[in-house]
Amino acid sequence: MKVVIAPDSFKGSLSAFDVATAVESGIKKVLPEATTVLVPVADGGEGTMESLVAATKGRKVEVTVTGPLHTPVEAAYGILGDQVTCVIEMASASGLYLVPAEKRNPLITTTYGTGELIKQALDDGCRRFILGIGGSATNDGGIGMLQALGMKLLDSEGNPVGFGGGVLEQIVTIDDSEFDSRILEAEFLIASDVQNPFVGPHGASHVFGPQKGATPEMVERLDRSLGLWADLVEAKTGIRLHDMAGAGAAGGLGGAFQAFFPARMRRGIDIVIEYTELGKHLDDADLVITGEGQIDFQTASGKTPMGVAQEAQLRGVPVFVLAGSIGRGIDTLYQFGIHSIHSIINAPMSLEDAMKRAPELLEQAAEQVFRTYLARAHQK
Amino acid sequence: MKVVIAPDSFKGSLSAFDVATAVESGIKKVLPEATTVLVPVADGGEGTMESLVAATKGRKVEVTVTGPLHTPVEAAYGILGDQVTCVIEMASASGLYLVPAEKRNPLITTTYGTGELIKQALDDGCRRFILGIGGSATNDGGIGMLQALGMKLLDSEGNPVGFGGGVLEQIVTIDDSEFDSRILEAEFLIASDVQNPFVGPHGASHVFGPQKGATPEMVERLDRSLGLWADLVEAKTGIRLHDMAGAGAAGGLGGAFQAFFPARMRRGIDIVIEYTELGKHLDDADLVITGEGQIDFQTASGKTPMGVAQEAQLRGVPVFVLAGSIGRGIDTLYQFGIHSIHSIINAPMSLEDAMKRAPELLEQAAEQVFRTYLARAHQK
Repeated sequence: MKVVIAPDSFKGSLSAFDVATAVESGIKKVLPEATTVLVPVADGGEGTMESLVAATKGRKVEVTVTGPLHTPVEAAYGILGDQVTCVIEMASASGLYLVPAEKRNPLITTTYGTGELIKQALDDGCRRFILGIGGSATNDGGIGMLQALGMKLLDSEGNPVGFGGGVLEQIVTIDDSEFDSRILEAEFLIASDVQNPFVGPHGASHVFGPQKGATPEMVERLDRSLGLWADLVEAKTGIRLHDMAGAGAAGGLGGAFQAFFPARMRRGIDIVIEYTELGKHLDDADLVITGEGQIDFQTASGKTPMGVAQEAQLRGVPVFVLAGSIGRGIDTLYQFGIHSIHSIINAPMSLEDAMKRAPELLEQAAEQVFRTYLARAHQK
Repeated sequence: MKVVIAPDSFKGSLSAFDVATAVESGIKKVLPEATTVLVPVADGGEGTMESLVAATKGRKVEVTVTGPLHTPVEAAYGILGDQVTCVIEMASASGLYLVPAEKRNPLITTTYGTGELIKQALDDGCRRFILGIGGSATNDGGIGMLQALGMKLLDSEGNPVGFGGGVLEQIVTIDDSEFDSRILEAEFLIASDVQNPFVGPHGASHVFGPQKGATPEMVERLDRSLGLWADLVEAKTGIRLHDMAGAGAAGGLGGAFQAFFPARMRRGIDIVIEYTELGKHLDDADLVITGEGQIDFQTASGKTPMGVAQEAQLRGVPVFVLAGSIGRGIDTLYQFGIHSIHSIINAPMSLEDAMKRAPELLEQAAEQVFRTYLARAHQK
C-alpha cells in the first residue's frame, strides 16, 4: 500500500511539510507498514519556494533588497538541488504583506527588489528561474525590476525616472544598452494563475489596483499610464502587451517578463508538480491525500488540490482532500478527480483552537479517511 | 448497493429519524440508485420510545400523570405495531428534566407517574412492556410506581406513607393485597445500562443522588433508607436487592422491578436493536452508517453506535460513524466493528451554528464518507 501525501500549507497554521507529516502519522497509525511519500506542494503562491527547495534538497539564500516602499527589506530566494534553478517569490521582495495598510499606494510601490533578487541569483550562476508573482504590492508595469537589471528608463529631459506606477507616464525612452545580458542566456518560468490583460477594465489597475491601495482616481491614472508604457514597449520590442492574457499579473510585472525576458507563463501548480516529480510518485500509488486550509469552488482555478487531483486522475489514483474548512460549491471539484473532501475539524471550535490543534486534527482526520478507504478491502 | 442508516438522535438538535433522513440525502446524492434502509435507533435513553414506535409503525398515547414533584405533567408512552407491546420512558413521567434545578430534591421526587403510565397501558390491553429507565429525578426505590399500582406501603401506625425517598424510612409494612394482578400476567423488559447495586458506596444514592439534588447528608439518609426498604422487600419476597447489579438503576426503581415484577433487565441498545430488526436489515447490507451527537470512549458502554457496530461486525458489514463532536479515546471503539469516525463539522464554528446547520452538515459528511468508501471500488 503506497500513499502519496501532497498537501499545500494550511495558511497561518502549518507549512505544507508539517501538514504532510501530520497526515503521515495518521496513515501509519492505521497501517504501520504502508509506504508513504511526502510531497509538500504549493500552487505558485506563498510557500512555493520553500516547498520546491525541500522537494529537491536545495537551499535558501537570504538577501537584503529594496522593498516596495524603497526601504531595505530582508528577502530570500531558493536554489534547487540542481544548482542552476532559482525559485523566487516576488512577494518576498515586493509583496503587499511588506506594506502596512495605511501606506499602500501603487503610485509609489516598486518591483525593484524583485529585480535585485534576479540579479543576485544570476551572480550565483543561476540560469533557470521559476518566478512566483502572486501577492504583489505593485502596479508599476515591472519597471522597477527592469531598472534593477540595468534598463534605463528616461524622461523627456533624458533623466532616469524614479520608482512606482506614478512615474510610468514620464517615461519616453527605453534604453536597453546596459540591460543585464545574462537574462537572454537564461530561461524564466513565470508561475501565475492570473489571465488578466495589461490595461482596460479587466487589466491590472482596475482589477488589482484597489486591493493595493489605489483610489478610483489612481486606478484611472495607473491604467492610462500602463497604456502609455505598453505603447513604448510595443514600439521598442514589437510586443503588444495591452490585451495579452497574463500581462496584467502582478501589476504588469507579468507583461515586463513577456516583453523583455525569455519567459513562459504557466499555472503555478503545474510548475510545482513538475519540479516535485509528483507524477512519478503517483505512478504506483494506491491513493493520494492532499489538502489546503480552506477549500471551496475557487479551488478549481489552479489551487493545489486541483493540480494534484488532475495528475492523479490521469493515473486512476483516488484523491482525498483534507481541509481546515469546507466552503461553498465543492460539488464542482469531483469531475477533476477529487473523490472526497473532509474537514479536519472534529467538534465545534474556534478558528484559533483549530489552528492550534491542527497537527492532531490532521492526524485524526487522515486516519479516519484511510480507515474508510480500507473498509472496502476487508469486505466479503 | 444497500446502505443501512441507523443513527441515534443528535441531542438538542435532531431526532434519530431526522439524522437518518439527512444521511440518506447524502448517500443518494452520490448514488441515486442505492438502496437505503432507515433504522433510527436509540440506546434505551431519550428517544427510545419514539424510535421503536416509528420502526414498528405503532402509535403514541398521551396521558396526564403525577409528576416527580407531585403536580400533573403531560407524559406519553408508545404502543408498538404489534398492539401488545408498550414502550415507556420513565423520564417522561418522572424525569429529571421535569424538575427545575432549584427544586431538585430526591427526598420528595416520586416515581408515581411511571406507575400510572403502566396502569394506563395495562388498561389499554398491553401485556408486554419495554421500560427505559434512564434520566430519573427520583431516589424513592420505586415505591411511587408500586403505590400507583395498588401496593400499600404503611407506616408504624398503619397509615399509607406519602411520596419520595424521604418516606422510605417510615415504611414498616408492604401490603400487596391490592397490587394490580395484571402485572403478573405481563412481561417487563427493563432497558438499563446501569449495573449499580441498590445500596452502599456504589449504590443508587451515592452515585446518582447528587445529580438529582441530594446534599451529602441527604445521600447518607437515602442510602440508609433504601437499605431499610430492601430489608423489608427481602422479608416480603425473599429477593435481596442490596447488592444486586442493576437494582440501583433509576434511584432503585430497577430494584422494584426485580422484586415485584416479572422483569428482565437488558442493555437498552440490545432491546432496541431486537425490536427494530436491525440484524435482518444488515444481513444483505454493504455498509451501515450510524451516529450520535458526541462520540468518545464512553460510547463503548452500550451507546447506539456501539450496539449497531456489534450487530454489523457479526455480519462483516463495515460501520462508519458520523458525530457532531469527537471526544477522547475513540481508538478503543475500532475493536467492536467501527471502521471509522467522522465529524460532521466542516469548518471552525460555534456549537449553536453546528446545531442549526446539522441537517446540511450531516448530508455533506455522509456524502463524503460514502465517496471515500466507494473510491476503492473504482480503482484499477
